[in-house]
Amino acid sequence: MTPPHGIERLAVIGLGLIGSSIARAVKARLPAVTVTGHDIDAQVRETVRELGFCDRVADDAAEAVAGADLVILAVPVGGMADTARAIAPGLDSGAIISDVGSSKAGVAAALARALPDHVVIPAHPVAGTENSGPAAGFATLFDGRWCILTPGADAPADAVAALGGFWEALGARVETMNAAHHDMVLAVTSHLPHLIAYTIVGTASELEEVTESEVIKYSAGGFRDFTRIAASDPVMWRDVFLANRDAVLATLQRFNEDLTVLQQAIRRGDADKLEDWFTRTRAIRRSIIEQGQDDAAPDFGRKH
Amino acid sequence: MTPPHGIERLAVIGLGLIGSSIARAVKARLPAVTVTGHDIDAQVRETVRELGFCDRVADDAAEAVAGADLVILAVPVGGMADTARAIAPGLDSGAIISDVGSSKAGVAAALARALPDHVVIPAHPVAGTENSGPAAGFATLFDGRWCILTPGADAPADAVAALGGFWEALGARVETMNAAHHDMVLAVTSHLPHLIAYTIVGTASELEEVTESEVIKYSAGGFRDFTRIAASDPVMWRDVFLANRDAVLATLQRFNEDLTVLQQAIRRGDADKLEDWFTRTRAIRRSIIEQGQDDAAPDFGRKH
Repeated sequence: MTPPHGIERLAVIGLGLIGSSIARAVKARLPAVTVTGHDIDAQVRETVRELGFCDRVADDAAEAVAGADLVILAVPVGGMADTARAIAPGLDSGAIISDVGSSKAGVAAALARALPDHVVIPAHPVAGTENSGPAAGFATLFDGRWCILTPGADAPADAVAALGGFWEALGARVETMNAAHHDMVLAVTSHLPHLIAYTIVGTASELEEVTESEVIKYSAGGFRDFTRIAASDPVMWRDVFLANRDAVLATLQRFNEDLTVLQQAIRRGDADKLEDWFTRTRAIRRSIIEQGQDDAAPDFGRKH
Repeated sequence: MTPPHGIERLAVIGLGLIGSSIARAVKARLPAVTVTGHDIDAQVRETVRELGFCDRVADDAAEAVAGADLVILAVPVGGMADTARAIAPGLDSGAIISDVGSSKAGVAAALARALPDHVVIPAHPVAGTENSGPAAGFATLFDGRWCILTPGADAPADAVAALGGFWEALGARVETMNAAHHDMVLAVTSHLPHLIAYTIVGTASELEEVTESEVIKYSAGGFRDFTRIAASDPVMWRDVFLANRDAVLATLQRFNEDLTVLQQAIRRGDADKLEDWFTRTRAIRRSIIEQGQDDAAPDFGRKH
């Protein structure tokens, strides 16, 4: 496949799960594109040199982006502003700057402030696993997943099309929306689930009545499903909650209301209300599987 | 393998996911044991006759248990008392009566009341999938999972050993504890996770700001993990929450306290508290994988 819309030189800043998966996917799907990588952590750079999925690994961020048509920042959202300032001296004037952060309004503002003279198009590939670091990435991570672009009103249409074409070439489906709506959608579909999972795993590990070893032993009854997302990268998630605070707190308020309703139904022994609720939620699962966003195999296809 | 401890004739009452998996596992692992099945639903009985994993399917519950050494009730916990009364006329005096319910103190009391002259040993195999019904079962469901026995103080030791040996023959690991402790452990490891998952899936489907179709589309960001357990059988779970009300409400109280702490940390921008919490929860996941209670493959081994 020829590089979409003239993207021939890519720089990826931050080589963890997402950054390293982008580099691997480009090598697999767009072999004509050269990939330069950089990570602030020297140990990560060394690992990436050994793994070999970048054409070049630069020790300096500004040096890494020199000559790039597209620069993707794949660092925790709290680090976006510093990273943007670090690459600024090396950027070509025609480069498109994008990112992969899980919250967008704050990141868009930070990037616009740090890079006022450049084309910035924030993006968020809704994909990931519970593992972190450059060894955890893989080329097919974005297959069939959605990548949401949140271009500002002044973003050039051809640059938006180029970035969208790039993500489609990596296997993703592309959607465009404004940053504020993105942040509300992701608060519901990703941030609140992570917050709840982190909470319940913490709760379970600190009860007096039940030992941690019992929690682990009997986790197959449901608890283990929460531990996967509660094993996600702590720094990345710390930053997400701080960056998308308002939307997260708003959806958390709604969750708390609903939890109170079910709590009351249990206390009162209201069997009909419980059964109605549990029947309704079952339909959502079916839709997710029909739309290819999860595996239909029972138990997530865990081996038996 | 010879039938453990003289169990030669098994009756399974209730042929959904768990009951049908028991029958299938017996056919696979204990071919010398004859299995008679019964389900209150004529359509289920018909399906089981077609699937062929029982030696015989009886139309009547009392007829199904006639001559059985071991009778396992695999019905929703709210139906245990009625089911026990229905089988009572057909039971052999020496039969062991057990069950598979997810809460034990209430079930133990109901079975003891309904069958005062029989040996009753409640049990709970901690295993399952999000699917229901006789077609959803499979012979290896219990492999490496724990089965918890909660014998009363007066349970004959040889009967407890026979039941434990039976579950081990099906691939399970066996643990014994008292019913009240079981109910607290399972409230944490299974019932609270299901309640939280049911809540959040309901919350997400009823927000004004985000459409249900957006929730489904972007579910790969974490939400989809909750939908699996929120797709579990509604009647079974209604009964679990009503039967284990006190322990569920007690653990829910602890969860709410912890959620309030994290909510406050987000509102105040307390980065250290968030990162500390998220780092701690990661270790639990590692232990669950080390102990073989979940799949180590990233993303639960979903296909990419």
